[in-house]
Amino acid sequence: MVLSLPPLSVEAESLYEKLEAFVTDHCIPSEPIFSSQVSSTGFNSIPPILLSLISTAKSLGLWNLHLLSTLSHLDYARLCCVIGRSFLTQHATNTTAPDSGNMEVLHDYGTPEQKSRYLAGLKDGSIRSAFCMTEPEVASSDARNVGGTTFARSTRDGRPGYFVNGRKWWSTGAHDPRCRFMIVMGKLVSSEGEKEKGHTMVIVPRDCPGLRIVRDLTVFGHDDAPFGHAEVEFKRCWIPLENCLGGEGEGGRIAQSRLGPGRIHHCMRAVGLGERCYDAMIKRSLEREVFGKVMIRHGTMQSKIAEGKGRLETARLLTLVAARAMDERGNKGARTDISLAKILVPRMILGIMDDAIQTHGGAGVEGELALFYGAMRCLRIADGPDEVHVGVVARREAKAWMERNGKL
Amino acid sequence: MVLSLPPLSVEAESLYEKLEAFVTDHCIPSEPIFSSQVSSTGFNSIPPILLSLISTAKSLGLWNLHLLSTLSHLDYARLCCVIGRSFLTQHATNTTAPDSGNMEVLHDYGTPEQKSRYLAGLKDGSIRSAFCMTEPEVASSDARNVGGTTFARSTRDGRPGYFVNGRKWWSTGAHDPRCRFMIVMGKLVSSEGEKEKGHTMVIVPRDCPGLRIVRDLTVFGHDDAPFGHAEVEFKRCWIPLENCLGGEGEGGRIAQSRLGPGRIHHCMRAVGLGERCYDAMIKRSLEREVFGKVMIRHGTMQSKIAEGKGRLETARLLTLVAARAMDERGNKGARTDISLAKILVPRMILGIMDDAIQTHGGAGVEGELALFYGAMRCLRIADGPDEVHVGVVARREAKAWMERNGKL
Amino acid sequence: MVLSLPPLSVEAESLYEKLEAFVTDHCIPSEPIFSSQVSSTGFNSIPPILLSLISTAKSLGLWNLHLLSTLSHLDYARLCCVIGRSFLTQHATNTTAPDSGNMEVLHDYGTPEQKSRYLAGLKDGSIRSAFCMTEPEVASSDARNVGGTTFARSTRDGRPGYFVNGRKWWSTGAHDPRCRFMIVMGKLVSSEGEKEKGHTMVIVPRDCPGLRIVRDLTVFGHDDAPFGHAEVEFKRCWIPLENCLGGEGEGGRIAQSRLGPGRIHHCMRAVGLGERCYDAMIKRSLEREVFGKVMIRHGTMQSKIAEGKGRLETARLLTLVAARAMDERGNKGARTDISLAKILVPRMILGIMDDAIQTHGGAGVEGELALFYGAMRCLRIADGPDEVHVGVVARREAKAWMERNGKL
Amino acid sequence: MVLSLPPLSVEAESLYEKLEAFVTDHCIPSEPIFSSQVSSTGFNSIPPILLSLISTAKSLGLWNLHLLSTLSHLDYARLCCVIGRSFLTQHATNTTAPDSGNMEVLHDYGTPEQKSRYLAGLKDGSIRSAFCMTEPEVASSDARNVGGTTFARSTRDGRPGYFVNGRKWWSTGAHDPRCRFMIVMGKLVSSEGEKEKGHTMVIVPRDCPGLRIVRDLTVFGHDDAPFGHAEVEFKRCWIPLENCLGGEGEGGRIAQSRLGPGRIHHCMRAVGLGERCYDAMIKRSLEREVFGKVMIRHGTMQSKIAEGKGRLETARLLTLVAARAMDERGNKGARTDISLAKILVPRMILGIMDDAIQTHGGAGVEGELALFYGAMRCLRIADGPDEVHVGVVARREAKAWMERNGKL
Repeated sequence: MVLSLPPLSVEAESLYEKLEAFVTDHCIPSEPIFSSQVSSTGFNSIPPILLSLISTAKSLGLWNLHLLSTLSHLDYARLCCVIGRSFLTQHATNTTAPDSGNMEVLHDYGTPEQKSRYLAGLKDGSIRSAFCMTEPEVASSDARNVGGTTFARSTRDGRPGYFVNGRKWWSTGAHDPRCRFMIVMGKLVSSEGEKEKGHTMVIVPRDCPGLRIVRDLTVFGHDDAPFGHAEVEFKRCWIPLENCLGGEGEGGRIAQSRLGPGRIHHCMRAVGLGERCYDAMIKRSLEREVFGKVMIRHGTMQSKIAEGKGRLETARLLTLVAARAMDERGNKGARTDISLAKILVPRMILGIMDDAIQTHGGAGVEGELALFYGAMRCLRIADGPDEVHVGVVARREAKAWMERNGKL
Repeated sequence: MVLSLPPLSVEAESLYEKLEAFVTDHCIPSEPIFSSQVSSTGFNSIPPILLSLISTAKSLGLWNLHLLSTLSHLDYARLCCVIGRSFLTQHATNTTAPDSGNMEVLHDYGTPEQKSRYLAGLKDGSIRSAFCMTEPEVASSDARNVGGTTFARSTRDGRPGYFVNGRKWWSTGAHDPRCRFMIVMGKLVSSEGEKEKGHTMVIVPRDCPGLRIVRDLTVFGHDDAPFGHAEVEFKRCWIPLENCLGGEGEGGRIAQSRLGPGRIHHCMRAVGLGERCYDAMIKRSLEREVFGKVMIRHGTMQSKIAEGKGRLETARLLTLVAARAMDERGNKGARTDISLAKILVPRMILGIMDDAIQTHGGAGVEGELALFYGAMRCLRIADGPDEVHVGVVARREAKAWMERNGKL
Repeated sequence: MVLSLPPLSVEAESLYEKLEAFVTDHCIPSEPIFSSQVSSTGFNSIPPILLSLISTAKSLGLWNLHLLSTLSHLDYARLCCVIGRSFLTQHATNTTAPDSGNMEVLHDYGTPEQKSRYLAGLKDGSIRSAFCMTEPEVASSDARNVGGTTFARSTRDGRPGYFVNGRKWWSTGAHDPRCRFMIVMGKLVSSEGEKEKGHTMVIVPRDCPGLRIVRDLTVFGHDDAPFGHAEVEFKRCWIPLENCLGGEGEGGRIAQSRLGPGRIHHCMRAVGLGERCYDAMIKRSLEREVFGKVMIRHGTMQSKIAEGKGRLETARLLTLVAARAMDERGNKGARTDISLAKILVPRMILGIMDDAIQTHGGAGVEGELALFYGAMRCLRIADGPDEVHVGVVARREAKAWMERNGKL
Repeated sequence: MVLSLPPLSVEAESLYEKLEAFVTDHCIPSEPIFSSQVSSTGFNSIPPILLSLISTAKSLGLWNLHLLSTLSHLDYARLCCVIGRSFLTQHATNTTAPDSGNMEVLHDYGTPEQKSRYLAGLKDGSIRSAFCMTEPEVASSDARNVGGTTFARSTRDGRPGYFVNGRKWWSTGAHDPRCRFMIVMGKLVSSEGEKEKGHTMVIVPRDCPGLRIVRDLTVFGHDDAPFGHAEVEFKRCWIPLENCLGGEGEGGRIAQSRLGPGRIHHCMRAVGLGERCYDAMIKRSLEREVFGKVMIRHGTMQSKIAEGKGRLETARLLTLVAARAMDERGNKGARTDISLAKILVPRMILGIMDDAIQTHGGAGVEGELALFYGAMRCLRIADGPDEVHVGVVARREAKAWMERNGKL
């Protein structure tokens, strides 16, 4: 089958243009204001400038873009490239992880009650959520290792439910003052303390007694306030049975379903951020003079730009192709393409960022480029580290070869 | 403007399928026969198996695909990926360099007489040609350096013409027994011996007195018989005025016009050859056992496969995007994309080949993979070395940035 | 001349052993205490644990190792590898930049009065200093660009002196509460406002009116308290003539003399830190299990370890060779070796750190590895960015070739 | 233990100087003569120029340097760097594989009769030998896979002996007209056809009935005449019992003992060849002009030179360190260092060669640089491919870490 990439749909084209204007005219100029507001409020409140951006995005029809069922994955990917240029845009448009994924999961697996209690608030932005999967004690890149968090059946006041016990980390958004609940992955334990094999997901309200935020994690020294990444302790947190999400033992399947698109959304935004850093590198190389000529006239600088352009286009194309594959063959059919993008996009964008840092000299290591670098570096670890996706690609390519050559 | 890649046209789809069958069923199986025939006939004659393939290609409607005006660059690129899987296919379908480029040049710039004398024969495959540009004495990657070959106006027997003097090398196809003429790039010299600034192209018949093939060049030890790469000496070769191609001083412009598409055609075929080597690598990794398990189960092997898949798709996508850019914006408007593909495609495919060699061990360095590697390595030098294209990309990207930011 | 590396001298051997014990038994265990103390005192005071380490180092004879005239550069390099394993050791042993370099400069170029006023305090650790060279407005990697800071001759109260005006950044140690003076590089200006061509260095007391710390710079988000990196403003700071260091117009020569060894000291410590990260990577790979086996049994993990070992040894060897070259041929004669180490050591160690981060997953991006990575990344920029050293190596190698071949 | 590299011994110093003169004045100038003589005689005879070089080397005391028991591994390594600059030198000084290794094996394990029949001739250069280990049918990088060649006990004319059956390839030197015997590794089979577990080595005379050279293998298209690499078939070759080398079942141990030093000898010579290519690159960059300036003034060219210098010194240092480790800790104790050099030296030198090819443009792919590249590429496969040595380093480093940390 020969690859094709359809043009933007008419609907997507209009959103694309509005988004470009929103990012350029509103989000990027708001960044320094946001930083300055955050530096005084920390995790305690949402900076007013973000609330104002949210209101603008809503009025422009740029809210909840990921929920537009009329957009193909390919078109949403294109929009995400624009969104990624400013880290504020995803928050302003309600398309940020983990809320976007949590919305999708609640939409697909939630009971009517769960939807009304949690999904509605996420959709209108009045509440936020976290997702608790990774555990500090085990190599969570192998999902089968995740199991230190347990759900023990226990009736309280005549109401059947579970005791949640365990420790999670990298729970993004847990610090957000608007955060109201966490989706927690773990394992059911029998009354004899034996763990079931598969995973289960439950909803734990943020104010559930026994739930404690142990500390905020930093990413290359940055605390990502006011959203943050938390280490969370669950100590005999009791929740009712109806807080189970999608059924007992269904956790693995749900996790898988949210990870496919999630990975690609990260990649899409990464490309947008990469574009921005690439532009910054060119800008700097045109402004500064060194050893008698403008930087861009030096061969070593030109190499960085040509490499950067190659990296940027490679990252963009691999992401678009993965999105297109999801449109054509579904999440599962697109797994090779998704893993390929997941491996290569962060590597490419980190390459651009590193060269942009070098081009900026001292200003590179102390400003936003260093911040972006740290955030991007996480992408080689989050949602399956490189090594896991290498295995996925290799196994699937071997199988594809065998199919092509009649060995299967 | 957002990238899209239209699907194959109906016409291209039918050609694509026929080509796939032709390559798989005829060309690849003919390779060992070709090699064995060539090893006894060398530069002296065309192996019968190739003549037979030519006849098959003609009967299947796969002849002169590059001349089909109804094919977009994008669709021709897709076909070339298939063509590239076997080095025999380009010879069997009359789409090989330098004849394909020479046909295009004669078509665009040739006089009616030049067309009837030279173009007709190239098109039906009865004659072959060479292209003489690079000179051994100078760094020809800077075209302005090319000037050791001169055309001195001189009337003979009352007929105005030129004396051609100089030395060229890397004249591909010059050894071919069917070769009848060479297109030679050089500089006009006045009677005082002063060289004009621009370049001029002329046609020199293969049997012109004074034209001597000095030696055959090898590529990583391979002589590429029966086509070959020659070093050619022109010693007072007289040609009539009407052998000038496209007008005096027009050589630079003509060279430029042929190089754009030519570069992409090379890239397209390179991707096809890369696919083949990638498949060979997977095949080997499934067949051999080492340290207690099939090779593919080793992590280092899986890394090679995932890297290879990434390289293959990167190379393919960059080439398709460049072809698409040529469709949308012409050769000149697509120059950044062409240069990017020209830099990255050979690098990617060489990476695949190198890993395939490593996977094959001793069989890697002595068989066809080593031959392919050598041929591919040339692509980082031919049609402008990497370093030249790096400069093109950097300069154009700087200009694009200035345009986007209102600095131009 | 064939390379040799003499064994440790008897004196160095004894220091080496003492240092190893000091680092392992005192410095590394003190790191978490230091971090915790700093997090409450910031830039305001020196954490008690550091004062205690200083006292231990003094009592062990590990103070001011860089001033031991009996140590060869090679032996000092070997000691610095040990020092580098903990960032506290350089502070505890008084061998840290910029004080170590400032001590050397004062020792070589200072007047008796400058020595008694500034050098003595630096040597006994009672005071600290900063070095102000880089300017935010220009590409300071080309030292000739440095010139926004000016010294205007001006007599005050009958005393000849200078007005210092300008802005510097990356003034390491300027925040330290013990900091008493800064060595500032700039240009003399005539009364007509014309700048002299060469550079001059002066000493500006920390409490000089007009000297203002504009802000503290962060490195990948880390403020490096209590030492810090500052942006400093000089606004009509008046200093007497005798604060000129080494004579007017001598600034360039002094800067050069301190940079040679300084670069190598950085490299030496980098290797020590690299060793530590490499060890952490192996440790983690032995402790965690993923996909059914201990990480180290995975081929991709083994590749990281073998690569890491190669990087570590490469970095160590190139540094030792540069130090040996300084012993044999002086700073100038060793310039190729110094530049080579300066280019490659940070690259190698960053490679180790990046793999160590990846091996640690989430713990990699939030802990000390990320902090180390940021600090190491600066080394590709500080003391001449890679690009400058590439030029040095290339020019000197070309000259060496010409000498070897009788072309000079 | 801190690394040191003792200076050249007095004896080695004198050999070093003589070798340098021999290589520069005799070997390199003889190369084109050798090539021209070989092109007419092929595998049929030894070119007279080589015989003349052999006679010169003998008269200068440069014969059998590898047998000088007074030389440390470190000093022999330094000599091999010089030897490697011209491929003729190893043949001229009798230090070439596989003869040098075969001499060592016969010296250590041979019976008095084997020594007089085979070792004497190898030492005086009157005869040559081959070594048959690798088999085309299996991944021989895992030595345990080698077992397709069998030795069946069988008495003939009352004389106990073996029938040798099997197929080997990459038997270097088998084509040499002076070749008189092959050392063959295989497995004993019982009369019931059961293979023993360990390996055994035997000596098979070149003229043994049933021994047939199936074909000559090429390396990247080059046949390496007159020495060559052969595929060899053994079909019921009978040899007497006394042709067993070192005892039945001892083959594995012998193979291991020859591989350690052999690997380092290859690396040493590789560094010498790398030096030569590096010099050629600088030379070219000083001679050619492109885009208005001499190549060396372009930043991209300077990067190649600085990279090349770094690669050259890295390769040299890692080899010297491995040789020094062999002196200090024996072959087994030096295994990590040997494997590290084995992995990195070919990679570094290939990097230099590739850049040198690029710098030479068309002259790079058709001349000696391409030939060198192909030969060097084999080193990543021969004597254990990279992947095997990666495993060695990782396992030993893990063990070393555990020892350092009291876990073993």
